Amino acid sequence: MALGQSISRVESKSKVTGQTDYVMNMTVPGMLHVKILRSTVPHGIIKSIDKSDAEEIPGVVKVVTGEDLKDFDINYYYGPAFRDQPVLAMDKVRYVGDPVAAVIAESVEIAAEAVNYIDVEYEEMEPVFDVLDSMKEDAPIVHDKVRPAGSFADLKSLLPQSGSNVCLHYKLRHGDIDKGFEEADHIFEDTFTTPAAVHLPMEQHVAIAQIDSEERMNLWTANQSPSFVRSEVAHVLKYPENKVRVKVPYLGGGFGTKLYVKIEALTAVLALIVKQPVKLALTMEEVFLTLTKHATVFTMKTGVTNDGKIVARKCNVVWDTGSYADIGPRITQKSGFTAAGPYDIPNVHIDSYCVYTNNAPAGAFRGFGVPQLVWAYESQMDIIASKMGWDPLEFRKAQVLTEGKEHATGQIIHSVGLDKVLDKLDTSLEWKDYHTNRTNGSVTQEGRKIRAKGMAIGLKAVLTPSISGAIVTMFADGSVSVYSSTVDMGQGSDTILGQIAAEELGLPREKVRVVHPDTDVTPYDTITAASRSTFYMGNAIQKAAEDVKNQLFEFASEHFQVNSDALTLQDEQVYVIDDPAKSITIKDIIKGIYKMPAGSIIGKYVFESHYESPDPETGQSKDIAIFWFPGGTGVEIEVDIDTGKIDIVNMVSVGDVGKAINPFNVHQQLYGAAVMQIGQALFEECKYDHGQMINSSMSDYKVPSFKDLPDHSDTIIVEEPHPEGPFGAKGVGETASFGVQPAIANALYNALGVRIKDMPFTPERVLRAIKESEKEQESSLVGSTVEIKGEK
Amino acid sequence: MALGQSISRVESKSKVTGQTDYVMNMTVPGMLHVKILRSTVPHGIIKSIDKSDAEEIPGVVKVVTGEDLKDFDINYYYGPAFRDQPVLAMDKVRYVGDPVAAVIAESVEIAAEAVNYIDVEYEEMEPVFDVLDSMKEDAPIVHDKVRPAGSFADLKSLLPQSGSNVCLHYKLRHGDIDKGFEEADHIFEDTFTTPAAVHLPMEQHVAIAQIDSEERMNLWTANQSPSFVRSEVAHVLKYPENKVRVKVPYLGGGFGTKLYVKIEALTAVLALIVKQPVKLALTMEEVFLTLTKHATVFTMKTGVTNDGKIVARKCNVVWDTGSYADIGPRITQKSGFTAAGPYDIPNVHIDSYCVYTNNAPAGAFRGFGVPQLVWAYESQMDIIASKMGWDPLEFRKAQVLTEGKEHATGQIIHSVGLDKVLDKLDTSLEWKDYHTNRTNGSVTQEGRKIRAKGMAIGLKAVLTPSISGAIVTMFADGSVSVYSSTVDMGQGSDTILGQIAAEELGLPREKVRVVHPDTDVTPYDTITAASRSTFYMGNAIQKAAEDVKNQLFEFASEHFQVNSDALTLQDEQVYVIDDPAKSITIKDIIKGIYKMPAGSIIGKYVFESHYESPDPETGQSKDIAIFWFPGGTGVEIEVDIDTGKIDIVNMVSVGDVGKAINPFNVHQQLYGAAVMQIGQALFEECKYDHGQMINSSMSDYKVPSFKDLPDHSDTIIVEEPHPEGPFGAKGVGETASFGVQPAIANALYNALGVRIKDMPFTPERVLRAIKESEKEQESSLVGSTVEIKGEK
Repeated sequence: MALGQSISRVESKSKVTGQTDYVMNMTVPGMLHVKILRSTVPHGIIKSIDKSDAEEIPGVVKVVTGEDLKDFDINYYYGPAFRDQPVLAMDKVRYVGDPVAAVIAESVEIAAEAVNYIDVEYEEMEPVFDVLDSMKEDAPIVHDKVRPAGSFADLKSLLPQSGSNVCLHYKLRHGDIDKGFEEADHIFEDTFTTPAAVHLPMEQHVAIAQIDSEERMNLWTANQSPSFVRSEVAHVLKYPENKVRVKVPYLGGGFGTKLYVKIEALTAVLALIVKQPVKLALTMEEVFLTLTKHATVFTMKTGVTNDGKIVARKCNVVWDTGSYADIGPRITQKSGFTAAGPYDIPNVHIDSYCVYTNNAPAGAFRGFGVPQLVWAYESQMDIIASKMGWDPLEFRKAQVLTEGKEHATGQIIHSVGLDKVLDKLDTSLEWKDYHTNRTNGSVTQEGRKIRAKGMAIGLKAVLTPSISGAIVTMFADGSVSVYSSTVDMGQGSDTILGQIAAEELGLPREKVRVVHPDTDVTPYDTITAASRSTFYMGNAIQKAAEDVKNQLFEFASEHFQVNSDALTLQDEQVYVIDDPAKSITIKDIIKGIYKMPAGSIIGKYVFESHYESPDPETGQSKDIAIFWFPGGTGVEIEVDIDTGKIDIVNMVSVGDVGKAINPFNVHQQLYGAAVMQIGQALFEECKYDHGQMINSSMSDYKVPSFKDLPDHSDTIIVEEPHPEGPFGAKGVGETASFGVQPAIANALYNALGVRIKDMPFTPERVLRAIKESEKEQESSLVGSTVEIKGEK
Repeated sequence: MALGQSISRVESKSKVTGQTDYVMNMTVPGMLHVKILRSTVPHGIIKSIDKSDAEEIPGVVKVVTGEDLKDFDINYYYGPAFRDQPVLAMDKVRYVGDPVAAVIAESVEIAAEAVNYIDVEYEEMEPVFDVLDSMKEDAPIVHDKVRPAGSFADLKSLLPQSGSNVCLHYKLRHGDIDKGFEEADHIFEDTFTTPAAVHLPMEQHVAIAQIDSEERMNLWTANQSPSFVRSEVAHVLKYPENKVRVKVPYLGGGFGTKLYVKIEALTAVLALIVKQPVKLALTMEEVFLTLTKHATVFTMKTGVTNDGKIVARKCNVVWDTGSYADIGPRITQKSGFTAAGPYDIPNVHIDSYCVYTNNAPAGAFRGFGVPQLVWAYESQMDIIASKMGWDPLEFRKAQVLTEGKEHATGQIIHSVGLDKVLDKLDTSLEWKDYHTNRTNGSVTQEGRKIRAKGMAIGLKAVLTPSISGAIVTMFADGSVSVYSSTVDMGQGSDTILGQIAAEELGLPREKVRVVHPDTDVTPYDTITAASRSTFYMGNAIQKAAEDVKNQLFEFASEHFQVNSDALTLQDEQVYVIDDPAKSITIKDIIKGIYKMPAGSIIGKYVFESHYESPDPETGQSKDIAIFWFPGGTGVEIEVDIDTGKIDIVNMVSVGDVGKAINPFNVHQQLYGAAVMQIGQALFEECKYDHGQMINSSMSDYKVPSFKDLPDHSDTIIVEEPHPEGPFGAKGVGETASFGVQPAIANALYNALGVRIKDMPFTPERVLRAIKESEKEQESSLVGSTVEIKGEK
């Protein structure tokens, strides 16, 4: 009764009325405030820190440096893949912005002022900023040694030799790549780049740490991964896990930047040191220095036969993970294995490198690296199609992975509606008419503005293996609480997960409450990310609710003297299916079980994915991802050929979500992800000068505003149900992020015949491409083909 | 490895260092404070309330009266048995102290001041204070109608007719009472009384209510029954249960006064009205007006054959439940059925009446009415033994219930070590020597002080049916959290329950954390009372831990290719029993299950008692209590025959606890309960003048101080294991409360030959008894027998 309903978000009212709980607004009694002094050099040894002036300022309680930490029996380093990031810089700094010292004071203002009175002397070391330079043998080494975290034990063989900035080298070998290229009639090779960018949720990173009367560490933090923060902070403090409690209320956005430990280890350690609660809230300027999206260099070489079959693809992807690995190694690996695209290619060879530099650390960003890959492979798909005279849509359809085909990883693909996504793009863009007219030379041109269409599709594998635990408790009055560590960061998980429980238990949605993450309360959940929550947590909740239902049925079955499978639960009553006059209310069942109108029924389930660890040398696995989810984007753009400015006239985002638990919410997710990518495509870019970010403020770093949005937008839901998903559902949070950039690039090519391979498509870059293209070819702007690098 | 260890309380350090969390010390942001205006008349109609002056005082936010509540769609009445108690007096007051209005102000001081400015005009009604008067037909009626709570549905047939102050009449009919008395050679009839008394935990009643951004009601309260408070406050507010959250940190004592709703409904409603958090903390003076121990009048008629066999016993017990029933009806019923004592008596007839008066409400008090009953039946046992020339010990042994015998309720008694308790009293008091010498005329007399010994035993049935749910979660590092709604109010439950989990999981106690009650987190538990937690919650925790263990075994069983029953869990490792070289650590198992060093294993269990509802006309049931627990007390007293003052020279408390999970803790419980009873026996009594309590302060109401303690004390543990108890354990919290009063009364008789039947044994009362006895008998003080009322 709750499934498939577009009910409003449960927290809408509290958000609109300003009542929603955010850590930023929280205080705890006796709380002190923290400000961070950050490195001004990109690479160097800390020779000395003089904090005496700062500590003399009235209201300053203490200034803490890495050196001070050595007085405490703690672990200094943390990290989700490698434990390479220090709580505070230990002896060395690795990027401009690296936290060097923390001032703890009675007010934010005093702490901010005192930061200016700390003197740090550095011995500067040669830095490396270019990720390709960083791979060279004589590059300055950012980390002398790497400390793999326990969670990376499965990838030991992919770990780097020390003495290299390559911290992970992922390999996929499928078929015989040399033979593949031999069979090909045409070979295409292109290199695509993306810059660093930032997430910029409206709420900055913020955490409060407090040690309680039981000497336990309590953390309130704006974080997407409370279970991880608990175990990692426990590691840093050398506490057992049950002595660390992490609570997360609502988040003002996440997008990946609030995954794993960001400021939590520092905040916890400072509370431990001063034995008082402390709060650390970053400014928006500091957010720019905390985590970025990986800049990438992706060289793709593709062999195609004369009849348009891709027979070989070689991918070389280099990820600039910056000064600390964060989750970069996992991106390199887990997104790396999708680099060849959602196509049926018999021979695939992928090398994916995670590389340290002295840039700000890079980590998860909505899409987890997949948008960077789709950008490349879907640009090249259009390059090839154009060169070989195929309709890009038909060219994709000719090779797209469909039910039962084998992915490059060796996994047989199921429940992936890529063909349906292409069909939806086709109809919604009126593609066939458009393409026919276009190849006949007819493009829409109005004055100096040219319109054209483009499309792209992508496929992502959900994080596997991973774990979601849930408890569902039904109280004596039939109301229900759902205990889940999924963080509602704006994606609407409280609403969706409640719908799943309500549906399973035959209750109206209002009767179900979803309790917010609190590691003392809500079971372990890997992370809120990777479009995994509806599937993983949804499954855990559905099965925990089923556990409750079974207990109700157990009583009703005896009560009516029928088998459990003869019963159904609807409208807060259990009915005998064949004799619906026989029914008993949930309340009466509970009263019957406990012989009083009291008590509660507890259901629980830990959902863990099946998984086959891939061979480290070949990346092959029969079971590498529990589900895959495709998305596609179609755009019509208008380019001003005098200014180079691109406007998006129409945008269509298509996502195969398996089953839309809450269709309105799915549309919002598709639209939100696509809009975010518009910024990345058209103007977002972190700019650096010798490691110093020079546009690290909201006035210098542009994000999409209302006037950047498409004039017209559509979001289209495809439902190819997944047999293991809750009611068939897969995931959706990242789906519409895949195709925006290549769709725009492809439309740009269709408009002007120019092929841009570096993002973003700023007016300057577009204009320069037009000029170069005119110079090179002196040919018609329409239908031209550039960038075919090699041919057999 | 944790079982049977006398480890220290887990909270000892935080208590000693003043770090323990108590609601009294808590604040929440924006919190207002409440003071209550109480009725000055015992029975009356509220004609008018003028609150205008009070509301004009700066800092007063609002004054709320019962009339004001009518603007809100809430239920005005609450209560655990009958919903007869209003949130604030609605039109009528029923005792001196009845809450009439609440002042909400910015500080406690302002609120307290403003209370004086409220003018209330009453139309006084005739009150009734004497419980026997109150049963008469023409008595003023305290409640026009009774509203049974849902939890009382099982007792509908015992509910009163309206127009009577008898709000429950419990009946037990076993055998043929008339035939029994016909068979008897001697009939004894005595009436025993007890006065109202108060619990006086060191921490007063205190609660904070806050409505959060999700419009949920959050309550922090010093209460022994968080699950009940949640459902009852939900009822008052007309909220679903999952919109009410009740949290309880440590309590500074409970003893029954903090059971069910006391101030929580009022506090919640006030927060709802002013839309701001409010705190209500009673003063110690108000605690005296909030709940008392039932005053009782117990007439017992017993028929005995010439060979010393009790063949018939008729009990008439009247309980003064005061102006509101609270849990009085349950005491009347559930303790009522034990009124005939722990003896094998073929013909038993019990009438137990719960009666309203205009006194302060009476409710649960450590022992739940059983001490009042034991006081009567163990006094009469000595009266009969003395009259019939039996050694009181031998007389008890001749009829005491032993394994397999039938209790008056019809239940066959198992695992009740009454005979062992008597043996321990015998040896520890050196009773046989003492009794032989005493009956030969030798008593210890030094100057005007006479020494003598006495004993008594009692038996209580644990609250049945009832429910305890528990969740046990093991984290990836093997540390464990136990989720239990049992309140640690000083009895040490955090320590004991953690020991049970640790023992079951082969962990050291330090690895287990017991999470405090929070109805959003910890599963439903009926109450923390009735000596039930070790058995009920211990069972739930043991079985939830077993659920975790089974999941570990499931993995290990496959790992070692053996059956689960070939495995054992010890020292944080699973071993193959027959091949201990084969072992795997808990950490490695979890890593194996989840394919990463993360996740958690959840175990859960809801323990509910089996139970057969007794026949409402006869009280007969084959399964009325899941376990019974006996206790006995022996004393040696010294009476000053000039002043009448009694000193306790030696006190022995014997309890059959089934299995002592933590022996030191058991000794503390036995000693604590006994000391509390010393106060009740020797001097504690609520004194009233026309309904006004005249000793409602710690300076006027005496409780035991160090100088009142016995010179020498022993606590002795008997372990008659219960097959269904966790590791055999039963309960202990009330055990030593049973026998103190009759043991002292019996010793007094043995010293002076006077039989006091009204408590407490103040010097004045003792002296008066001596004088009367001397007047009546002019005989030897030693060995005399008084009070044989009837003889066949």
